[in-house]
Amino acid sequence: MTNNPVVKGKLVCVALNDSKQFDAMQDAFNNAPYKSAPTQPVLYFKPHNTWSVDGAEVEWAITDGQPAQSMVVGASFAVVFDRECCRVSEEQALESVGGYALVHDFSLPEVSYYRPDIKGKCLDGSAPISAAVVVSAVTDPQALSVITQVNGETVSEMPLSQMVRSVAQLISTISYIMTLQAGDVIAIGFPGERASIEQGDSVSSAIAGVTQLNNTVGRA
Amino acid sequence: MTNNPVVKGKLVCVALNDSKQFDAMQDAFNNAPYKSAPTQPVLYFKPHNTWSVDGAEVEWAITDGQPAQSMVVGASFAVVFDRECCRVSEEQALESVGGYALVHDFSLPEVSYYRPDIKGKCLDGSAPISAAVVVSAVTDPQALSVITQVNGETVSEMPLSQMVRSVAQLISTISYIMTLQAGDVIAIGFPGERASIEQGDSVSSAIAGVTQLNNTVGRA
Repeated sequence: MTNNPVVKGKLVCVALNDSKQFDAMQDAFNNAPYKSAPTQPVLYFKPHNTWSVDGAEVEWAITDGQPAQSMVVGASFAVVFDRECCRVSEEQALESVGGYALVHDFSLPEVSYYRPDIKGKCLDGSAPISAAVVVSAVTDPQALSVITQVNGETVSEMPLSQMVRSVAQLISTISYIMTLQAGDVIAIGFPGERASIEQGDSVSSAIAGVTQLNNTVGRA
Repeated sequence: MTNNPVVKGKLVCVALNDSKQFDAMQDAFNNAPYKSAPTQPVLYFKPHNTWSVDGAEVEWAITDGQPAQSMVVGASFAVVFDRECCRVSEEQALESVGGYALVHDFSLPEVSYYRPDIKGKCLDGSAPISAAVVVSAVTDPQALSVITQVNGETVSEMPLSQMVRSVAQLISTISYIMTLQAGDVIAIGFPGERASIEQGDSVSSAIAGVTQLNNTVGRA
């Protein structure tokens, strides 16, 4: 297990925050099991055993005693809290944020956003978190873009302006569900289309001029 | 936020591990959204902001700006890890466990075990954890029983022998999904029927001769 110096309490991830994906799923949302589109952010946790660092090799998943057939990765802009944040308005939301970072979420392929996928999401070392940059280094987080490359080829580009809910909106909403504490991290939104990866791949994400995160995928 | 000295990494809770409840739900499992009974343990996390202690007052939930209409509580036997535990057999499962404790899970009423209920489960201070007793003080954990009282009246009695999966089985299965680390806690199984509580109630659970956990419910 690798310790990560940035995250201390909890790593909350937001699913379905890419408006392209959200719009494309409208038909699916009208059918079972969803019945209607979610009206609240869809959240999941990456627990302690998943936390890892820039430069780390990420283990290839073992499921049912065998190397997993496939894995995927997504990268997200993340906010790091440096003080307690409870029931704040959108206007106050960024006051408790001390830094910005990048999070890689390695997982088994996502089958549904309806059922909690503990098995696919809680793989050891599957959430590397980059070094955090201080908030004052970034004028407008909504103007940033997260670019991810696998083996040097760009597989996704996620402008934060494409998110269903903004950084400040999400922090406000989540702060009414649970208190965020110093050392908590929220990964605000992943591209809807996760990138397929193979054993031995290198995965690099960057927010130009802000921070980057480089990992390799291990071999089973 | 109250710190708890027992749990350091993650608090994993097991749902649907009461065989009485599991058997009673067979009809529901055959219908949407389940379609079939779960073949794997159903897990959820109580994150850092939920951790609390014996004697603490638990806040009454606020939802949509209003005091929640109702809350429920369940008590579970819990194991506390004192060393890393990864992909262990049922026979080895208890070797990494250093202590036993009780966990109260206060939440909004559970609507479904299918959809992840982050909002209902992640209330601040909603997971008090008792002092841990050393494993050597208990001969056979499966012979224990968890009794819960609300305002002095017994509302549930959960013999650990009534669990769908035993303590050792669960630790083994979960250790293949995610590594358990020193300071991690698993709440092994709650009674299927959660107890309804009101503002100002006192909630006390005990495992006779082992440990107890007393909390009061705050007023909104």
